[in-house]
Amino acid sequence: MSGNRTSHIRLTSHPRTGAGVRFPVRWDAPTAQTRGPVIVSANAGADRNAIGAHGGAYSIYRALAISAGALDPAVRPELADTYPVVAIGPHPQWSTPGRIVSLDPWGARVASDFAEAMAEGVDIRPTIAVTKARIDLPEIRAGLAAGRLTVDGQVVHAAGDVAVTKVAIDPVWHLPGVASRFDVDEQQLRRTLFEQTGGMYPELVTRPDLSVFLPPIGGITVYIFGDPSRLGDPRFPLACRVHDECNGSDVFGSDICTCRPYLTHGIEECVRQAQTGGAGLIVYNRKEGRALGEVTKFLVYNARKRQPGGDQAATYFARTECVAGVQDARFQQLMPDVIHWLGVRRIDRFVSMSNMKYEALVEGGIEIGERVPIPPELVPPDAAVEIEAKKAAGYFTPEPAPSPADLQRTVGRDLTEF
Amino acid sequence: MSGNRTSHIRLTSHPRTGAGVRFPVRWDAPTAQTRGPVIVSANAGADRNAIGAHGGAYSIYRALAISAGALDPAVRPELADTYPVVAIGPHPQWSTPGRIVSLDPWGARVASDFAEAMAEGVDIRPTIAVTKARIDLPEIRAGLAAGRLTVDGQVVHAAGDVAVTKVAIDPVWHLPGVASRFDVDEQQLRRTLFEQTGGMYPELVTRPDLSVFLPPIGGITVYIFGDPSRLGDPRFPLACRVHDECNGSDVFGSDICTCRPYLTHGIEECVRQAQTGGAGLIVYNRKEGRALGEVTKFLVYNARKRQPGGDQAATYFARTECVAGVQDARFQQLMPDVIHWLGVRRIDRFVSMSNMKYEALVEGGIEIGERVPIPPELVPPDAAVEIEAKKAAGYFTPEPAPSPADLQRTVGRDLTEF
Repeated sequence: MSGNRTSHIRLTSHPRTGAGVRFPVRWDAPTAQTRGPVIVSANAGADRNAIGAHGGAYSIYRALAISAGALDPAVRPELADTYPVVAIGPHPQWSTPGRIVSLDPWGARVASDFAEAMAEGVDIRPTIAVTKARIDLPEIRAGLAAGRLTVDGQVVHAAGDVAVTKVAIDPVWHLPGVASRFDVDEQQLRRTLFEQTGGMYPELVTRPDLSVFLPPIGGITVYIFGDPSRLGDPRFPLACRVHDECNGSDVFGSDICTCRPYLTHGIEECVRQAQTGGAGLIVYNRKEGRALGEVTKFLVYNARKRQPGGDQAATYFARTECVAGVQDARFQQLMPDVIHWLGVRRIDRFVSMSNMKYEALVEGGIEIGERVPIPPELVPPDAAVEIEAKKAAGYFTPEPAPSPADLQRTVGRDLTEF
Repeated sequence: MSGNRTSHIRLTSHPRTGAGVRFPVRWDAPTAQTRGPVIVSANAGADRNAIGAHGGAYSIYRALAISAGALDPAVRPELADTYPVVAIGPHPQWSTPGRIVSLDPWGARVASDFAEAMAEGVDIRPTIAVTKARIDLPEIRAGLAAGRLTVDGQVVHAAGDVAVTKVAIDPVWHLPGVASRFDVDEQQLRRTLFEQTGGMYPELVTRPDLSVFLPPIGGITVYIFGDPSRLGDPRFPLACRVHDECNGSDVFGSDICTCRPYLTHGIEECVRQAQTGGAGLIVYNRKEGRALGEVTKFLVYNARKRQPGGDQAATYFARTECVAGVQDARFQQLMPDVIHWLGVRRIDRFVSMSNMKYEALVEGGIEIGERVPIPPELVPPDAAVEIEAKKAAGYFTPEPAPSPADLQRTVGRDLTEF
C-alpha cells in the first residue's frame, strides 16, 4: 500500500473507500487516545492520516540523506530517554474546540501516549520536544554588571548564565481550524495553499478526508524562565515576549531594526519576573522578514534607502508593499496557539508594542496586563525609521504617536554612508 | 493555461509537447541571456520553467495572505531601486560546468538582465538580494575594549559598529547537477525527494524536462567585511567562516555548543583581515540542528543527558544517530557553491575546524591556507562534550586528537544540575 516500498510511484493519493481508517484524528478530543496519533512518516504506509512530512523543510535534507545512501529510510527513531524534562499539560485548552489549530498539543508525548501502537510497528513521531539549557548572553551580563539583575543561584547562576526550560515545536495544522481562524472556506484555503506554492502537496486538494497538514515552514521555540509549573497559575505573574525571527539583528546585530535589543530586553524582563515570584516566557517564531523571507527583506532595504527623500518613516510600509505586495505576512492569528498550549490565560507584562500581536492574543481570550515598550536607549541608530513608522501605524506607545510631520523628519542612513 | 487563473485544478503537470519552450534554461551558459531566466512564479503560467516556489517555505505564508484576501495573487514586485548595492560577478565559475548547482548565479540581476521579457509581462523574480548594513555585536565591542580590534572609521566605526555588505540567497537547484554532486542517479534523486517528503512536488517525477527546483528549505546569508571587490583577487588575503545555523546558541547563547562563540570569533577574524589589507566573509547557512531541525535536536539533548554514564563525548555521535537515523544531514557537498559564486579561489584563514567543510571546499577546488581553531577560552562550560567528540572524529585541531579515555572522561552537565 505504501508508495515508497514498491517500485510503483503514486503521484497523489485519493480518499480510501471501503475499510475504515485505522487511526482517525478527532482533533479536539479530550485525551490522547480519543484524539488519536498524527501519523505522517513516509514509511507509515496506509496508516498515514496527515499531509506533509516531519521536520518541515528538513524533510528535504532527510530525503537527500536517503538518496545519498547515508540514511536507511526504514529506520525509526529510538525515543527512549527523549521524553520531556517537564510535563506540560494536558490543559483544558487542548480540547477546547478551535483553541489550538496550528500545533499538536499531544506532540511531545507520543512515546508514552501511543506506546502500544508504536510497539505494533506504527511509525509515530514527536512534533514537540522539551529540554533544559543554560543560556549566557552578553546583554544579561551587562544587566548584572549594571545592577539591574542579580545572581540568585536558581534562575541566574554565579557565572551570569541563566537556567531555562526550552521547547521546540513543529507546525501541525488542523486545516478546518486554520480556515476558520482566517475566516475563509476550507476548500478555498486548501486550493490556494496548493496552487500558490507552485503545486506543493496535491493531497491538500485530493484528500479532503485528511484534515491535518504538517507544512514545511519553520516552527516555534519557547524559552521558559523559572518554574514551568507556574505558567497558567494565576498566583504567579508572567512576563512574556512573542518575538518573530530576524536573523540580521538577532544574530548579527544589524542596527536597522530593534529586534535583538527588544528580545534581550524581553529576556531581562523574564529573568526579573522569575526572580520575583513569577515566571517568564519567550516565544520565538521562525518568520524571517515578516514571513516574507530574507531575499525580499534585503530588496526592501535597498528600495527604502534609494527612494527620493531617503529612508523615511513616512514611507516605511509603502516600500515593503511595493516589493512584496503586502506589508506583512506573519498573520498573528495562529500565534496564540502556543500560549494556549502552555495553559496561559493571562500575561501580566507583555514585552511587545505590536498591536497585531496584542489584538490576536486578546481576541484569543488571553488577558494582558501591562504592555512594556522598548526602552528608548535600546533603539539602534538606524532603527528610528521602523519604530516611528510602527508607532504611527498602531504600535503601543506611552507617548502620543508621531505626527505625519514627525514621520517625514525621521530619515535613516543613506546607502552612501554605510 | 495557468492552473490558478481558471476554475480548473491541475494536480500535476506533464511535459508539454508540440510548441517549443519559450524560456529554456541552459544552466551553465556563459551569459544571462543564453542561460535564460528561471521562472517559477505561480502566476507565470505556461512560462514556468522550474519546479517549486519563490521564497521557499515562505510561499506558504504568501498563500495564506492570498487566501485571507490580504494579497492580490496577480501583483508583481516593483523591482525599481532593489538592485544590488555592489555588483558581484559574473565570474568564470558561473559558467564552469558543475561548479554551481544549488543557487542561481544570475539571481540578483534579473531586473536588468531580463528587463525586456519582464516588460512584456513575464513574471521573473530575484532569488538573490545584495544590501549594506551596520552590525553592532557585544563581542566585537569587547574585542575593541580589550585592544584586539581598533576603530578605523571604515570597517569599524567609532561607536563600535561594523560596516558590511550582505547577501541573501534562496536555494535554486539544478537537479542534474545536484544528483551528480551526490553521485546518484537524477531520476532516483527526484523520486526520493518526492517520496520522502510525503509527496511534495509531483513535478519532480512527472516533469523530467524541468531541470530546476526551488526547494522550500532555508537559504544562505553572506556577510562581507571590507571591499567586496577584493573577494577572489589573490592580492587580498581572505578570512572566512562557514557557519551552520544554531538558533539556541547563535541567538540565545546556550552553553551546550560552541556555535555563537565560534561565529563571533569568526567575525572578529574577518574584521581584522579587512582592516589589514584583506577581506572577510561569513557564510551563514540555514541548517538548524545539522539540518535535522530543532525538535530532533532537543530530543537528542535529552537522550544524551539521560544515558547511563551521563553526557559523554564518547557517545556524542551515537545518540544523534539513534534518534535521527543519521549523525548529520547538512551535506557540505553543496556548500562550496556560494564560495564559487563570489569568485573566491583561496581562503587564507579558514575559521572552522570541520573536516567535512574543509574537504568539501578542497574537493571543490578552493585552496585553503591556515585553519583557525576556536580559542579554548571561548568554549562554553557544557560544550566540551561536543568539541572533544568532534576532534576525535576528524575535526582539525593543532593538538593531538583526544584518546578514547579522554572522551570517556569528558562528561557534560546532568539534567538535575540545570
